[in-house]
Parts: sequence; C-alpha cells; structure tokens
Amino acid sequence: MNADTNSPAQKIILDCDPGHDDAIAMLLAHGNPNLELLAVTTVAGNQTLEKVTTNARALARVGNITGVPFAAGASRPLVGPQLIPDEIHGDSGLDGPQLPEPGAPLEDMHAVNLIAQVIRDNEPGSVVIIPTGSLTNIALFARMYPELVERVGGVTLMGGGHHTGNMTPAAEFNILADPDAAAIVFEESWPVTMIGLDVTHQVLAVPERMEQLKEVGTDVSQFIAELVEFFGASYMKERNYPGPPMHDPLAVAAVADPSVVRTIRAPIYVETQGAHARGQTIVDFRRTWSNNDPSGLGLVDDPEASSPNTSVAVDVDTEKFWNLLLDALRRIGNTNF
Amino acid sequence: MNADTNSPAQKIILDCDPGHDDAIAMLLAHGNPNLELLAVTTVAGNQTLEKVTTNARALARVGNITGVPFAAGASRPLVGPQLIPDEIHGDSGLDGPQLPEPGAPLEDMHAVNLIAQVIRDNEPGSVVIIPTGSLTNIALFARMYPELVERVGGVTLMGGGHHTGNMTPAAEFNILADPDAAAIVFEESWPVTMIGLDVTHQVLAVPERMEQLKEVGTDVSQFIAELVEFFGASYMKERNYPGPPMHDPLAVAAVADPSVVRTIRAPIYVETQGAHARGQTIVDFRRTWSNNDPSGLGLVDDPEASSPNTSVAVDVDTEKFWNLLLDALRRIGNTNF
Amino acid sequence: MNADTNSPAQKIILDCDPGHDDAIAMLLAHGNPNLELLAVTTVAGNQTLEKVTTNARALARVGNITGVPFAAGASRPLVGPQLIPDEIHGDSGLDGPQLPEPGAPLEDMHAVNLIAQVIRDNEPGSVVIIPTGSLTNIALFARMYPELVERVGGVTLMGGGHHTGNMTPAAEFNILADPDAAAIVFEESWPVTMIGLDVTHQVLAVPERMEQLKEVGTDVSQFIAELVEFFGASYMKERNYPGPPMHDPLAVAAVADPSVVRTIRAPIYVETQGAHARGQTIVDFRRTWSNNDPSGLGLVDDPEASSPNTSVAVDVDTEKFWNLLLDALRRIGNTNF
Amino acid sequence: MNADTNSPAQKIILDCDPGHDDAIAMLLAHGNPNLELLAVTTVAGNQTLEKVTTNARALARVGNITGVPFAAGASRPLVGPQLIPDEIHGDSGLDGPQLPEPGAPLEDMHAVNLIAQVIRDNEPGSVVIIPTGSLTNIALFARMYPELVERVGGVTLMGGGHHTGNMTPAAEFNILADPDAAAIVFEESWPVTMIGLDVTHQVLAVPERMEQLKEVGTDVSQFIAELVEFFGASYMKERNYPGPPMHDPLAVAAVADPSVVRTIRAPIYVETQGAHARGQTIVDFRRTWSNNDPSGLGLVDDPEASSPNTSVAVDVDTEKFWNLLLDALRRIGNTNF
Repeated sequence: MNADTNSPAQKIILDCDPGHDDAIAMLLAHGNPNLELLAVTTVAGNQTLEKVTTNARALARVGNITGVPFAAGASRPLVGPQLIPDEIHGDSGLDGPQLPEPGAPLEDMHAVNLIAQVIRDNEPGSVVIIPTGSLTNIALFARMYPELVERVGGVTLMGGGHHTGNMTPAAEFNILADPDAAAIVFEESWPVTMIGLDVTHQVLAVPERMEQLKEVGTDVSQFIAELVEFFGASYMKERNYPGPPMHDPLAVAAVADPSVVRTIRAPIYVETQGAHARGQTIVDFRRTWSNNDPSGLGLVDDPEASSPNTSVAVDVDTEKFWNLLLDALRRIGNTNF
Repeated sequence: MNADTNSPAQKIILDCDPGHDDAIAMLLAHGNPNLELLAVTTVAGNQTLEKVTTNARALARVGNITGVPFAAGASRPLVGPQLIPDEIHGDSGLDGPQLPEPGAPLEDMHAVNLIAQVIRDNEPGSVVIIPTGSLTNIALFARMYPELVERVGGVTLMGGGHHTGNMTPAAEFNILADPDAAAIVFEESWPVTMIGLDVTHQVLAVPERMEQLKEVGTDVSQFIAELVEFFGASYMKERNYPGPPMHDPLAVAAVADPSVVRTIRAPIYVETQGAHARGQTIVDFRRTWSNNDPSGLGLVDDPEASSPNTSVAVDVDTEKFWNLLLDALRRIGNTNF
Repeated sequence: MNADTNSPAQKIILDCDPGHDDAIAMLLAHGNPNLELLAVTTVAGNQTLEKVTTNARALARVGNITGVPFAAGASRPLVGPQLIPDEIHGDSGLDGPQLPEPGAPLEDMHAVNLIAQVIRDNEPGSVVIIPTGSLTNIALFARMYPELVERVGGVTLMGGGHHTGNMTPAAEFNILADPDAAAIVFEESWPVTMIGLDVTHQVLAVPERMEQLKEVGTDVSQFIAELVEFFGASYMKERNYPGPPMHDPLAVAAVADPSVVRTIRAPIYVETQGAHARGQTIVDFRRTWSNNDPSGLGLVDDPEASSPNTSVAVDVDTEKFWNLLLDALRRIGNTNF
Repeated sequence: MNADTNSPAQKIILDCDPGHDDAIAMLLAHGNPNLELLAVTTVAGNQTLEKVTTNARALARVGNITGVPFAAGASRPLVGPQLIPDEIHGDSGLDGPQLPEPGAPLEDMHAVNLIAQVIRDNEPGSVVIIPTGSLTNIALFARMYPELVERVGGVTLMGGGHHTGNMTPAAEFNILADPDAAAIVFEESWPVTMIGLDVTHQVLAVPERMEQLKEVGTDVSQFIAELVEFFGASYMKERNYPGPPMHDPLAVAAVADPSVVRTIRAPIYVETQGAHARGQTIVDFRRTWSNNDPSGLGLVDDPEASSPNTSVAVDVDTEKFWNLLLDALRRIGNTNF
C-alpha cells in the first residue's frame, strides 16, 4: 500500500511471531500509507515457529497482503530453553477468530538470509527493522552479516521496559525469551528504539476502543475485534487489566509516525544472567542525552559523553495511535478473505 | 532522650557508616522524642571501618549522646571486593566540618554480638534495626543468631530503589557494597521496609532547607549545615543535583513517624549476580498486597497470595521530614562539643 | 591425649558435621599423640545443626573426650539453600551403630566466638583449624574477626578436588554446601591445604581394612566398624565403590603426620557461580611453585610469581594413614561408653 | 586426494582458524587417504577472520588443494568479547614461514550456508565436521538449520579438556573464545568427540619429531617445519614446553584413524558463566558408559541411564599420529607453491 503523502514511505521489515498483537501490527504495517512493507519474517515466540509462520501467512490472506516475501527464521533462542506463553495466546498462538488458509507462499530461504538480501538490495539507511517477537533472527543477522549492520536504518522493537516486567518482576517476554539475542541487538551500532511495557501498558484496548474497531465495519476489523476479545480475556484473567495492551502495533506506529511516542536517548543494557534480573532491560537514566529530564532533578546533557545509540519510549499519544490503527483498517477495507 | 508523648518511644538500633547523611541520621535518632536509641553499630561503607567508627564516636560527642553502647562491626563485605565512595564523602568519610575527639567509648565486643545482646535483652518485637550502610552486620547477625531473627521488630533500611540506581544504572550504593548481605536481609522473616532512592531523591537539602537548618542556631545545627554543604558540593559536582539527598535520616524519620513515607507491600528481590544488575533491588509490582495501586491499571490485592514481608517506600511527605529533623535539632540544643 | 614424643603436639580445632567420616576424624584427632584437640565446633552439613551437634557430643562419650569445649555454629550456608545428603549418612547423620547419650556439655557461646577465643588465647601460628564440613563457620570467623586470621597457623580442610566432584560432575559436597564460604576461606591469607577427592578416593575402607579395624578389639573400634559398615553400604549403593572413602580422617591425618599426603603448592579458586561449576575447586596447575611437576611437561617454578598460600594434596600414603588410625584406636582403648 | 584403500574415505568439513596447528591439520586432512575434504570454512580465532581466511587460502596453495570450496564465517563470538592470542600465533596468525599468495577462491556465501549446502547435498550421516577453532560457525549452523543437525555424521573438535585449561586454569582457548557456541554444539543431538588438552598436550613436536618432519624433504614439509619452529618458540617462551602441542592435527587424525585416540563416552558440559570456570568443559566421570574405567574404583555402566552423545579423548597413540602426518606429507609431495 503506497503512501498518499509527498514524502516517500518508510521501508520496513516486520520480524514477528503472531501472536494477537503481532497480527494487528502486521495489518497496521500493511495499511498505513507511510510504511512500505518489504518482507515479513517469523521467529518462534508466542508459539512454535511452525505455528507462528502458519499464522503469519494466514494473516497475509486476511489483509490481502501480496507481493511481500515471507520467510521462516529461528525455531528457538540462541542460548537457553524456549518459553511458550500459551496462557496468553492459546494453543494456536492466535486463538479467537477462525483463521483462513495460509496465503503468502514461504520463501525457500532462511529469514536471516532474506533480511540480508533486502538490506543489501536497498539503499543504506533506508530500511527499518521492526521486531515484535524475540530478537533471535535479528541477532543471528548481526552475527552472520556484520558488514550489513551499518546499512540498517534502525531497529524499532517491541520489548523490555524500564519500570517493570511481565514474565518476571524485571523482565518482559520478548527479551526474556532470548536475552542473549537482545543483548546483541542493543549492543550493535544501529539506532535502537525500545517500545517497552512503560508505554504499551498505557495503550489498552478498553471497551470503548473495541467499539471504535467494530465501527470500521469491515471483515478485517471484525477479525481484529475477535482477536482483541480473546487477547483481552487472557489479560483480564492473568493480570486483571481492563483491556489488552497494544504491544506490537505500537512499535509499528512509532515508525509510521514517530510523534506517537516520546523517547529519551539513554544507554540501555540487557541483563543476560542473574537470579532475578535475567531478561531485564536496564536504562541508565542517571545522565540524559536529550532535553527530556525524567528525573525531575535538573539533570543536563553531559557534553563529553558520547551519545548512546539507544532510545527508550517513555510516553505515548494514545489518541494518535488509535487513529493510525483505525485509519489503516479503513484503507484495507473488506478483503473477503 | 525520652519521648514526651504518652506512647512509649520506639526502641531502635542504628547500624551506620558515617558518612554525612548517617551523621544527620544519628542526630535525628538521638533528638527525636519517639525514638529510644539502644545501640549504635558501625560497618565499613562510606569509608573504612576504622574511619566510620571514629566518626560515629565523634558524633556522639557532637550530639552529647551518652549511655548508648557503640560497637564496631564488619570491615568488609561478606563476599566480593570493597567499594569506598570517597568522591562523595571525602577522605575522612565525614569531610567538611571540624570533628571533635571521639566521645563514646567502644564496646569490647563485635557489633554483631552487641546487636544479639540488645535483641535478647529486650521484649520480642520491641526493637527495630535501622541500617543506613551496607547490610553486612545485619546479615552476619541473621546467620550467627538465626534464633533471634523472629525477636526483631523490623528492619527499616536506607538502600536500594525501584526505578534507578546511583552507583550503576541499576544499583544503589549500600546494596551494591554487599549484595549478598542485602539478599540475606531481604529474605529473612522479619518485616523489612526499604527506604530507597525513589524517595530519598525527593528529599534534597536545597538552599531554602539550608536556611532553615541554620536558623536553628545551635552549634549542632551549624555542624550539620557544614556537613550538608560539603555533601551538597559532592552531589552538585558528581550528579548536578540542586541539593544533597537526605538518604539516611529519611530511614530514621520513617521509624519515628511512619506517616513520613507511603509504602507498598510487595516482594523485593536483591540481584547478587549479573553483568549489569548486580546490587539491584527488584520490586515485584505486578501484584500488590495493599490498596495502593502504582500501576494505574486497576490491580487488586490477590487474596490467595501470601503477603510478602517486604515493603517499599514510594512517596514521601517532605515537609513532615524536615519538621522532624528541625525539631530534633532544637531539642538537642547546644552541646558545646 | 598428650603426645609421647619429644616435639610438642600440634594444637588443633576440629570443625565438623558428624557424619560417619567426621566421627572417625574426631576419634583420630583425640587418639593421635601428635595432636592436641583444643575445641570441637559443629556446622550444619551432613545433617541439620541440631543433629550433628548431638552426634558430636555423643562421640565425646564414645571416645571419652573430656576437657575439650564443644560449641554449635552455623545452621545454614552463608548464601543459598541448604543441602542435606541423607542418602549417604542417614536420617540421624550417623546411622549405623547405637549412639550413647551426648557427653560433652555445649558451651553457651557461638562456635565462631569459641574459635576466636581459642585463637586469641594461644600463641600466634600455633593452632591449625581442621574443617571437615562445609566452611560456613570458618568464613564467618574470617569476616567477624579479620584481625585474628593471621594468628591462625593454617587451615587443613577436607573438601573439593581437582579432577572430579561427587555431588555434581565438578563439585564435592563440603564445598558445594557453601561455595561462598569456601571462596572466603581459600582467599584469606592463612595457609590452606586442600585434602580433596583426588586423595580421599584413594583411601577406601575395603574389607581387609575392616578386618584390621575389628582386630583392634575395643568397644570404640567396634563402634567405628559399624559406622564404616553403614557408610560403606551407602557408597556401594550410590557409587558402587568397594569401600567407603575415609574423607575426613585423612584431613586430620595430614596434620598429625604431613608425610601422609604429597601436596603441591598452587593457586586454588572456588567457583561460586555458574550453571555447572558452582562449588568446584579449580587448581591452577599451569605453573607450579614446588618441585613436583604434575604435568609431565617439565614445568619449572616461576621465580617471579608470588607463591600462593594454597596447596592441594595429590597423592596419599594409604598404609601410613591406616597405621595412624589403628594406632589412635589402640591408644584410646576401651571406654565403656 | 582419494583413499587408496577399499573402504571409502570419510567425508569431512574442516572449520578452522589458521593458526599454526590448523595449518598442519589442513594439510593432514588433504594428504590423508582416508579422508575426503569437502569444504574448508573459517572462523575468527587465532587471528581476525580476515587474516585466518587469507591464511587458509594461502595454505590451499601450499598444499595444492583444488576443487574444494572455501568460505569465510563468523568474525566474532556469538556473545561476549573477542580474544586474539597473538602471543602464540603472531600478528599474521601464521607467523614463521613466508606465505604464498592466497590460492583457493572464496565462495560468495557465508560459511554457515556452505556447511548447510554440503550437509544437504550428501547422504545423511556421511559427513563429519572437524572444527579446530572456536565453535561459532557450528553453533550458528545448528541454530539456523536445526533440521540438518541429524544429517551430520559427527563433530570431532579440538578444544576443551578435562583436567586443565590453557587460557585460564580451567578453560582451553577454543572453548573460552566462544563458550556459548561451545555449549550449543555439545548440547546438540549429533555425536561429539572432544579432542582436548588431555591428549593434545601428550603430542609435542619435540626436536626428534622436527627431524622426522624435515626428513620428508619436500617444500611442504619444510614449510611445516618452519611453522612448528615458530609455534614451538611461542610455547617454550609462554609455557616452557619442550615442543609445541599438535592440537588441531590430532582432531583430524582421530577422524582419519579412530584408533589414534582412546575415548570414553561421558556427559560433557560447557560452563558459560562463572568467575573462574567460564569456558571450562566439565566431563562427568562419576558414571561411565563404556568399558573404560578412568576412576580405578570399579565403576560399571549404568544400564538405566541413557547413553550420552559426547565422548572425550583420554589417551593417544603418539607414534600412530606422527606416522599419519608423515605419510600425508609424503603423499602430498612437492607442490612448488
């Protein structure tokens, strides 16, 4: 779907593990006019690689996404055991609505090699990778093709958080699922923007939002409403939230329109060890490299320190997010999947 | 100093490493009418054991503290190397004002044995320990005398923090100085209240507060003003703070008048390992055991979960704190040290 | 029992957790004329503190050990959970023979304070500590009384091993039971001699040795034979060994007569972390500080390197060990316990 | 070079980081008639990826190795910093003799993808991978292509050791250079044979062996003699060894003729964490799964335990090794490189 503005659309690769919120993220990536979806890659996470890959291809049919290569990636984390959060996403990884048959054919190529090919075939700096699952594929890409890292325009990922975790007191699921991969991604030289629980827990699909989704009135919006319903029931049961957080779509929205979130540039470290902190993303807020001062203590930029390449989202314009999502769904319209 | 109210004073043991803010904490503990200081024990931390012990005894002379046993404790952490933050407290550990000769004589007894004796000699539950340094002595006490742990009324400590560290992005000094000891203290069965950076960074001795201190007009208040001046210069230089945080006195104030801080009961874990998180205190805010809901997500108490024995201070009544401190100084009056 | 030679007996403190082999170690320490037993302290290990302390006092009656102070020490490791190997030592910690009522009265003093008193009351360098359990008491002593460490003549401990573990592929029980305490003990400045599995697995109480024990023909030797029988059955069942290893008595024997073992001076590190190596003692054999060359590669002493204070036993004179033990039993004779 | 016996040659992939001993390993792999070299892949290790890849291609010219694809692989470890042992191998990674211009052209394909292609194109179980550097490529292969792991005939690697390390007291260089990769390789389901320091330190190129090498009298044997001379000087200077160990060629020899080493089947664990044990290979010798009993304690096979897929070489037939190497050099003859 082409951009309808004068500025060219931002090219993106979506690396995902659908997953309810990944599904919404993919449809947002497809329907938003400021984004050009170059490839979809999958990684084990919310369910096994096989299931999330099938789900991704079914979503291609739901959204009528054509001409975009799909490839399967890592089936388990770099190091350590695999986590499957089926208490949240159900046995299929996308429980709730009836899924159509898989649409997009799978490339006969590993996701990591597909990412390398897309990065190689596009202008340096022109492509942003949006991972919405664990970071195994992206870390493998960095280790297999270090010479391509500087050609990546940025990595805007859903994961982590500064003040809280969800899987453990300190760790969010996507990071905990492969902390070593996350550490690799945060340490590489590309610009990383972390869309973590600090902001995604502010964007809940509460009942009024569900109403807005349904009012779009298409088969796709109805499909999403059913996803949200299942996802919301999980979150109500497990966490007592009034609506499910829009984790993954927020990462896509932050690329489509950076003003959706407020970010602070600060060093971010991933703890890969520890008895309690494994999988935590630690943001160093003791100094800041921006005009935003979260400490309230009058901290100023340290002009001598080299600027970190990592940013953390600390606030979100909820209204703007929902407008982006509703607009994308209206543009997609009915697909008669 | 006896309480002038009808309710009996809360008996306390102060375990400290003076240290500028420890010094103020000791004078507050002495001057506050709701507290009865049973013993002062020292631990290496802000400076070596020898220096902080000398400082503690000099403070006894400053405050005219008599009849209270002083004992020296651990000279290094349980495990791992020793940290000395002389960029904050100077070479003596109490740089700034001229110190008098040490007053209180030292007991010929290890601090840990003195704590054991005091706990044994008082009613079960009647004594609260207030550690304002690293937790080595308290951990040694728990391991040497496990049968006395249940006789301790509580441990209200200055250290840690939920949202930030000061020595590292994640860790506060007192905890990082001996993470293993801290883990022991937080895991024991006594009630623990953590007065961490989340609240102490809200209580800064900004210039207006300095004015109030000086207005007390005694030799002791003048002494404290000079301490704060040196401490404040360190914090301005190292951290660009408009005034030095009143870390340790806040722990004493929270025992003297619990309404000075708002606390939330929640599990707290100390990370003893890890590349980045060593020394971090991790609070599990995913569920709460009180009516205070920090998440804004409508979390409710989980009636089936057993209540944790640890609480974290999340907010502070700054005005109330300063009034407590000024009142204590006025009660102490001139000591002609 | 006094020495019957011209040279004065070596003064020792036995820190133990009886335990079958601890029991034999205590009787050897009592009966050997070259040793003077100044104190017996207990530590949780082979069973709970309560049980091993009762056992130690019962052994005092068995061996008619009088005038030696007994004190109870740590009931759990410094850090981490407690291990109880009841598959080896049974429910009492000393299953097998009928135990008499406890003999020696318990001091009203913590084991760590008793050790401090004994070290303080004797000439510097004159007392060797022999720990045959986990090293919690000794580590607590080092942290509580660092000024006394240089007065200790040496620490000859049963624990660890270079080539193998028993509880895990890498770790021996006494070290794994409290790795942090072990690390403290090995890092202190006193001379440490490690009597580990490399040598204790060479000293098995095979049937011919059982015969020799019985031939002593006293009530005490009969008691020991019954201990060995139970201990041997455990080892046969769990490890298929032809006889139980004489772990703890070998440490006592190595102090009574240093020629019982061949030692190599080399740095020894205790791994306190790790997924597989926690509790391992790592000996650095890449360089040696003695004329013994275990590598076969012609390594020579590095004259520039400072000599380590740790030695590892690498070979044992089995015959000499058994003679020491049999001699001690004969000297003890019948005690009619 | 084709096999001259009736049994077909064993197909191998050599994954290396030349490196003096890697160089000899490659020439042995090429010259031995029982081996068929299908591919050579490189990995950063003894020097940077660029240097070791250049070296590998220069060795192709030295040995006149043609028709074998060469591909470059990982330039750094999966996780953690890179180690370069230039005190052993010099600035080029192959200091000593004059190197010819690189021979074999590089495939335009990542080493990991080349390995995948070779494994896919050959019969299941027919190809053995011989890594003589750090295990980054092999671990990446296992994670990228998990479906191909069961098609690999085995992994016979130079690295690790049971009784000693070389880089640290516990760790050997190839394992320490990428412990996480090593852990992945040892945990996969393929058969792993560890040719570690226990055996490679028994195969030293002492002066008599140097004589034998020179007596072959070809330009290639002269080249190798010069390599050994430089390598030997490093080992004499750093470790005082009478000759340099033939680490890597021994792994190739163990595939060419398994009777060169005696192996014991036992579980092997790689420690990826820890303060002292990081990079250690821990062999569980407490039980054995073969008739060889290294303990001397009469251990027997545990028929109920599932057999581990890992074996450790514990002894070596030195004479047989040298004969294999000398024979290979004679077969290669003069190459006039």
